[in-house]
Amino acid sequence: MNKEELVNTLNEITQNANQEELDVLTLLLSGLKKKQHNEKKSYIGSLLHAEGEYKDDLFSITIPNTPIIQNALNIVHGGITATLLDSAMGGLVHHILPPDKAAVTTEIKINYVAPGVGKELTCKANLIHKGNKTIVTEGKVYRDDGTLIAHSTASFFIINRG
Amino acid sequence: MNKEELVNTLNEITQNANQEELDVLTLLLSGLKKKQHNEKKSYIGSLLHAEGEYKDDLFSITIPNTPIIQNALNIVHGGITATLLDSAMGGLVHHILPPDKAAVTTEIKINYVAPGVGKELTCKANLIHKGNKTIVTEGKVYRDDGTLIAHSTASFFIINRG
Amino acid sequence: MNKEELVNTLNEITQNANQEELDVLTLLLSGLKKKQHNEKKSYIGSLLHAEGEYKDDLFSITIPNTPIIQNALNIVHGGITATLLDSAMGGLVHHILPPDKAAVTTEIKINYVAPGVGKELTCKANLIHKGNKTIVTEGKVYRDDGTLIAHSTASFFIINRG
Amino acid sequence: MNKEELVNTLNEITQNANQEELDVLTLLLSGLKKKQHNEKKSYIGSLLHAEGEYKDDLFSITIPNTPIIQNALNIVHGGITATLLDSAMGGLVHHILPPDKAAVTTEIKINYVAPGVGKELTCKANLIHKGNKTIVTEGKVYRDDGTLIAHSTASFFIINRG
Repeated sequence: MNKEELVNTLNEITQNANQEELDVLTLLLSGLKKKQHNEKKSYIGSLLHAEGEYKDDLFSITIPNTPIIQNALNIVHGGITATLLDSAMGGLVHHILPPDKAAVTTEIKINYVAPGVGKELTCKANLIHKGNKTIVTEGKVYRDDGTLIAHSTASFFIINRG
Repeated sequence: MNKEELVNTLNEITQNANQEELDVLTLLLSGLKKKQHNEKKSYIGSLLHAEGEYKDDLFSITIPNTPIIQNALNIVHGGITATLLDSAMGGLVHHILPPDKAAVTTEIKINYVAPGVGKELTCKANLIHKGNKTIVTEGKVYRDDGTLIAHSTASFFIINRG
Repeated sequence: MNKEELVNTLNEITQNANQEELDVLTLLLSGLKKKQHNEKKSYIGSLLHAEGEYKDDLFSITIPNTPIIQNALNIVHGGITATLLDSAMGGLVHHILPPDKAAVTTEIKINYVAPGVGKELTCKANLIHKGNKTIVTEGKVYRDDGTLIAHSTASFFIINRG
Repeated sequence: MNKEELVNTLNEITQNANQEELDVLTLLLSGLKKKQHNEKKSYIGSLLHAEGEYKDDLFSITIPNTPIIQNALNIVHGGITATLLDSAMGGLVHHILPPDKAAVTTEIKINYVAPGVGKELTCKANLIHKGNKTIVTEGKVYRDDGTLIAHSTASFFIINRG
């Protein structure tokens, strides 16, 4: 769509929109704006409104729980929990590696132990093993009431950047 | 944001938007419209423009490869591949179960074997084992050139529908 | 123990042995004899009386189900099923690799779907993906009545042989 | 074999046995004796000379590293590491459960991060999540020099004891 068609489509949606749909539009457009202003590196990170930080040997990412990331039962989709885990464990790995190295996920395993509900989700990633060619990490996702909802381990293969 | 603020934000984004950003806006707004018209059950499914079908004992889902689902290296984010796998294996499970039963994912493991590039990704899910209380499934994600990019197994716990 | 002490201990055991214990002794001593005669490469393979073969792109290993490999409930121990899977998938990988290459298991995931009972267990391993540095395989363990008891995927890292 | 044949086979083996083979015979026969005297519940536990204990919320099992459990490269077989992990995590689960409940392993995933060498291996298992129907645990295997060689997570399904 061109600019005019985009505005027409937005008007069409908002005309009949309920509050949830307006909230979703707000999330998507404010997320896109951040991406455009280079506040975020990827569309996924900007649309999820992900905030990450490295502290005390842990890489953490927090995302708000919104209708965008929920399944038909209003529980966070397991794939979004996986996205959060892969991003946080990958963030940890890239924090640890020197600037001329990068890493790709080769495998991930997730145990889902409680439903993803509440206001936000926080993932904390820590190191299990750092080798010359591979890194193994652990990730845990918590609700804002502190309940563990998922546990994960993943392997990363180290590659040269460039 | 209210309707007016949404339109203002959209105008702000489109004013400086490159083609990729216009494409992303198109994907998001056209996806939302489908959700509003009940063509899709979840925001995730509608934003990913996922199309699923059950045929020959397989549940398949295809999604276009777009900038929305890529990481900073323009490769499909492992979390999106996980979302596709969880959705397709879950779709298979719900297709198999009687109407009064549902299922939740208890664990998933994914091996990533090739980068997610190309025009679209297709996930095919098949049954490994159906028990009274749990179901184990297998899922494979392919590029449009037929290359396998990820292999997965997952377990589902059967519950009664509320 | 020296030779005399070994014979004394054997006599001590056989004096009060029930039929199961005589069977176990038979398995252990006949297995050891095979290892001594170089019919088997490892003690584990010889004690499990494992028989492997490569045929039609599959590497298969069959072991008899005996009291040695069972848990306290007379079901095959999950660790033995894992041993069978790791051995068969590793056998496949070494069959595929050229003579100057070897491989080590970097991760394995197993879903146990039915109890290991019956006369023997057969594991069949097939290839999922062969890369330059890693190989991903699938393994399935069956009872002699054809029931699947376990499904597995594993990753191997390719190394140069010393 | 009957008692006489067993003694003849033992003599046949010992006649040409090197020190390693005498050590293996010692391990097997002394292990069997413990099983016969009910010091161990399973043949596997007795042949591995496994010693377990529960302390400070951890269930630990230590086994000596002997030729019996090694592959052709004199490194502990991944399947034995799996056996140790499954046994320790299962031991933890049964320690936690009330006497009228038991549990079966439904899935296990293991990351192998360093070769199993040294004098002995110790596995420590801890709880990740206890639900009404399932339990998720973590297990780590260490060499006697403190090096982590494997990390694992596993799920157990709770059943009523017969």
